[in-house]
Amino acid sequence: MIRFTSDCSFIGKYQRLIKDVVIPFQHDILFDRADGAEKSHVAQNFINAARVLRGEDAGDGFYGMVFQDSDAYKWLEAAAYSLVSFPDDELEREMDEMVELIAAAQDADGYLNTYFTINDRGRRWTNLQEGHELYCSGHMIEAGVAYYEARGKRRLLDVCLRNTECIYRHFITEGHPGFPGHPEVELALMRLYHLTGNAQALELAKHFIDVRGMDPDFFKKECDARDWYVWGADPADPAYMQADMPVRDQSEAKGHAVRAVYLYTAMADLAGETGDEELKAAVIRLWDSITQRKMYITGGIGQTCLGEAFGPDYHLPNDTAYCETCASVGLMFLANRLLSADPDIRYSDVMERAFYNTVLSGIGLDGKSFFYVNPLETIPGVSGIAPTHRHALTIRFKWHACACCPPNAARLISSFGRYAYTQSSEAAFIHLYAGGTVEFDGGLTINCATTFPYGRDVTVCVQKGSGRIAIRIPGYAAEAVLKKNTAPAEYTVKNGYAYITVEAGDVITLFLGFEPVMNYASPKISGLAGHSCVSCGPLIYCFEGADNDDLSALLLRPDSAASAITEPAEHGILSNIPMLKMPAKRLVYNDALYDSRRPFVTHCTAAAIPYYCRCNRGESPMKVWMPVIFV
Amino acid sequence: MIRFTSDCSFIGKYQRLIKDVVIPFQHDILFDRADGAEKSHVAQNFINAARVLRGEDAGDGFYGMVFQDSDAYKWLEAAAYSLVSFPDDELEREMDEMVELIAAAQDADGYLNTYFTINDRGRRWTNLQEGHELYCSGHMIEAGVAYYEARGKRRLLDVCLRNTECIYRHFITEGHPGFPGHPEVELALMRLYHLTGNAQALELAKHFIDVRGMDPDFFKKECDARDWYVWGADPADPAYMQADMPVRDQSEAKGHAVRAVYLYTAMADLAGETGDEELKAAVIRLWDSITQRKMYITGGIGQTCLGEAFGPDYHLPNDTAYCETCASVGLMFLANRLLSADPDIRYSDVMERAFYNTVLSGIGLDGKSFFYVNPLETIPGVSGIAPTHRHALTIRFKWHACACCPPNAARLISSFGRYAYTQSSEAAFIHLYAGGTVEFDGGLTINCATTFPYGRDVTVCVQKGSGRIAIRIPGYAAEAVLKKNTAPAEYTVKNGYAYITVEAGDVITLFLGFEPVMNYASPKISGLAGHSCVSCGPLIYCFEGADNDDLSALLLRPDSAASAITEPAEHGILSNIPMLKMPAKRLVYNDALYDSRRPFVTHCTAAAIPYYCRCNRGESPMKVWMPVIFV
Repeated sequence: MIRFTSDCSFIGKYQRLIKDVVIPFQHDILFDRADGAEKSHVAQNFINAARVLRGEDAGDGFYGMVFQDSDAYKWLEAAAYSLVSFPDDELEREMDEMVELIAAAQDADGYLNTYFTINDRGRRWTNLQEGHELYCSGHMIEAGVAYYEARGKRRLLDVCLRNTECIYRHFITEGHPGFPGHPEVELALMRLYHLTGNAQALELAKHFIDVRGMDPDFFKKECDARDWYVWGADPADPAYMQADMPVRDQSEAKGHAVRAVYLYTAMADLAGETGDEELKAAVIRLWDSITQRKMYITGGIGQTCLGEAFGPDYHLPNDTAYCETCASVGLMFLANRLLSADPDIRYSDVMERAFYNTVLSGIGLDGKSFFYVNPLETIPGVSGIAPTHRHALTIRFKWHACACCPPNAARLISSFGRYAYTQSSEAAFIHLYAGGTVEFDGGLTINCATTFPYGRDVTVCVQKGSGRIAIRIPGYAAEAVLKKNTAPAEYTVKNGYAYITVEAGDVITLFLGFEPVMNYASPKISGLAGHSCVSCGPLIYCFEGADNDDLSALLLRPDSAASAITEPAEHGILSNIPMLKMPAKRLVYNDALYDSRRPFVTHCTAAAIPYYCRCNRGESPMKVWMPVIFV
Repeated sequence: MIRFTSDCSFIGKYQRLIKDVVIPFQHDILFDRADGAEKSHVAQNFINAARVLRGEDAGDGFYGMVFQDSDAYKWLEAAAYSLVSFPDDELEREMDEMVELIAAAQDADGYLNTYFTINDRGRRWTNLQEGHELYCSGHMIEAGVAYYEARGKRRLLDVCLRNTECIYRHFITEGHPGFPGHPEVELALMRLYHLTGNAQALELAKHFIDVRGMDPDFFKKECDARDWYVWGADPADPAYMQADMPVRDQSEAKGHAVRAVYLYTAMADLAGETGDEELKAAVIRLWDSITQRKMYITGGIGQTCLGEAFGPDYHLPNDTAYCETCASVGLMFLANRLLSADPDIRYSDVMERAFYNTVLSGIGLDGKSFFYVNPLETIPGVSGIAPTHRHALTIRFKWHACACCPPNAARLISSFGRYAYTQSSEAAFIHLYAGGTVEFDGGLTINCATTFPYGRDVTVCVQKGSGRIAIRIPGYAAEAVLKKNTAPAEYTVKNGYAYITVEAGDVITLFLGFEPVMNYASPKISGLAGHSCVSCGPLIYCFEGADNDDLSALLLRPDSAASAITEPAEHGILSNIPMLKMPAKRLVYNDALYDSRRPFVTHCTAAAIPYYCRCNRGESPMKVWMPVIFV
């Protein structure tokens, strides 16, 4: 296993924030000790389930969403990753305590879900569509794998293996039909298989992928056979659950965005494992469907406010966008699995875009405030208020009844090294630029120093071992200069990766020539003709009312980005964040709703901040795409 | 009563279309004889209700929306208006037949509603929020008044008076609490009062207006007390029913747009009748709320796709706009009542805007296809498909389960004279330019000749009588030249109306100087900075894919409108509609979803048609607001 230990550069600081603030805060949440946050009851649900299993009463019962258990698992997973860079005995003690609560809530047959155990064990497996039992198992397995990988502790992993046996018994041995309405267990079972070689795990993952969509009416029939109700999607709309057709026939990303990318991730992983070319081709079609027709420039996915779901091709409204943080986390999972099979910047460029924009946007700079939804425009007075904008909040929340995103962002950031660095028989890959030390399997150890995403230089010192390194040259780099020990390097480029042979003592430097640029959208995207968006490297910039008076009357010039200067922001929490200041135009309107008098155009300066820094200074209008004076 | 007989100019042709096509087509609908249209069952509901009243079984029962009866009433009302310009014995026979069906469905106590009579008479008045009994009574009263005014026939009017007694008994004599969830009966009762002087009608209208919103929890309590369900709005959201506070305290237009403007119309009428200054001030605040902060440039109202309702100030999205045809009809009602008290072009300019754009857009040029919803942008592949765009169809429908709009547009067009011409002790008013003959009360008779809205000249010949005429000079007229018998006229102008004294034989000519212009939106409307919309006089123009290749890459120039030339459209159904052809720009993009390469700009010609002519040539993208190259 590759071990990445971050330094104090950009990623390391974020990992430190997760370690110092987010993980303790989320631990308080799990135990309902965080002031001013919504009650979570997560730990208590496990305690109450254990009471039921011991034949006692259920205490104060179950509270929360049907998938409430998963918050504990995602916290454990994030904490496990964090231990690699930041060993911490006290954290490990808290984790072990949580693991014991979980283990005590496992039924004798290996089943583990507090909602069903507390409320009605007879309802087990009767609502695969929305019951989230397999989803929760998936997150538990991911946590069990991560904790074992980090510290070699088997306690949770063994719980996971017993739970996998239980699932296997129900769906394979006993042959009950069905598959999860919310994919997750499939990708988790693949991870369990990669770690342990457990054949049941692989077989189960393949089974759930294979049967999905074979009977498009499965969830409708399941619903009709059920006499109890829990919230959820329309069972008669199988596309929402990616179950309207067999997965190998799918070509268009449809339905709930998180469910979709979790499923596609497992499909990619399974295809890589089994060499299933038909499955792989389906995953690539689905990747193209997302990234070529349904993705925001921020790497956000899930266009529609109704159902957190994919919408039609090229329908990418800014203000009603869903762009769930979790969906971009899942898009990174998918890119990561595709990169394992085919190192190609068409995957890693998107993975980086999603990370530096939508994923990071989901977590406040204070580490204690979050966004579930990441629109590309917020309009105070409309966002969070109009019926189509209720989801698009203008103020970060401290916690949330449906708290999937904060721990998902935490586990992603803590495990950033897994996305930045991978290894194949061909080379050791540097997909993303993350400062720190990387120990690849086989002895190659490198140190990577960079101030990316603001700096343009990446220095790789080979500390130990030798071999081939493949370093990504991103698509946005107008030029790239690769040197080895101060001389121009000898390298070959394939699919955007520079392959170079190294040995201990070598110093590789990569200079990436990127500057602020204007981006233009396909005219197929309604509403963006005549608009532009500023980016610099992987960072998309946005314009906030906090820096720009009367944002709605501001227009860019085609040369705004090229003429931009970088200045550290002065504002408290944003201090030292490089802000772009650029020449722009302002329309001076008359004071009517509509007017045939043409507005005057004046000169002004506009200020942009990286999108991921949005909304850290209270409520303010925000825009990514700006109208541009276009001559 | 003023009698307007249209000629064969613009309005007359539309009235002829209503008479020749729409009224017969809608009659077929009422009797389920229209091929390819959804079943309506309207006439059969009356027949079945009469069976129940005779103690027989209910036949095939009730079918349709709870307010299905109102389609018959609106048809009767439209037909009654039509008889003024187009006497027609056969139509009158059909109307009398319908009146007899209605009369036979009236219960012994005067109650009349087929839904409740057929389904369960015990449920009467227990769902004022959504039961629509009072709404249907209101439409019946409007029809009864219109038929009596047109032909002096009392049969339906007497049914209405008995029904009014029944309502009075329940709400006043017996003192049952409540008021209609969907206002309509209030404005109808005012019309009944104006015609008959019936004191119960005035007292009831005032009662319903006065008690509305006094108890914001009324509908919630009503719902809690009810053991049966019919679809409808959330009873805990009284603002949706304009019942969150007493009407005299209201300042912001909220909730369902049609309900709102029907209510405000009655408030304006009552305030004019009783001299209630507090009520009048509330109506004017609400008018300003709509027209200064919540109205589309087409006169469309109701911004949100969820609930057909008003949204926040300045939130005016183009593609998800609701802009129900009925809501603009209601906005014309409101303007009409406000004009009675205060002739001011701030009301009549909006009334005309609503008519020539959103109201006419609701009815196809063939008179047989309709739109319920009138967005300012349609995007094939998204409109009608995405969850937020399901309402925004790209193809006109023949009929509709909720068929309120087609008959509403029909009755409005048939009674256009009521909006164009009014009279006060001060003057005879010409608010809108409609060719034909107008007999005012007191003997003044004029003939108005015009090719408006395409022509700029209005010629008024005084055929009989003498007095003061007040003719509107619209706000969009860059110049206006008023002559009397070829010499410059002597006149005074007040609130945009030119007051001029005339006698028999005088010929007044008004030249209105309007040309195509670009309109700009307040920067407070998100998404419209850098955009412009072309209008000419009252007509808003739109750009359709049928006339413009690759509409999404088209940009206007600031001089596009000023350089426009008028050409009759060549296409079949649009032939002779003046189309505007204007110089424009086209962006030539690369083929990526997002690209930092700047698109080329080329010259091209763009073609625009009047908005009301939209979507008469099959599915096509359509835009009202266009990005503009803005220097």
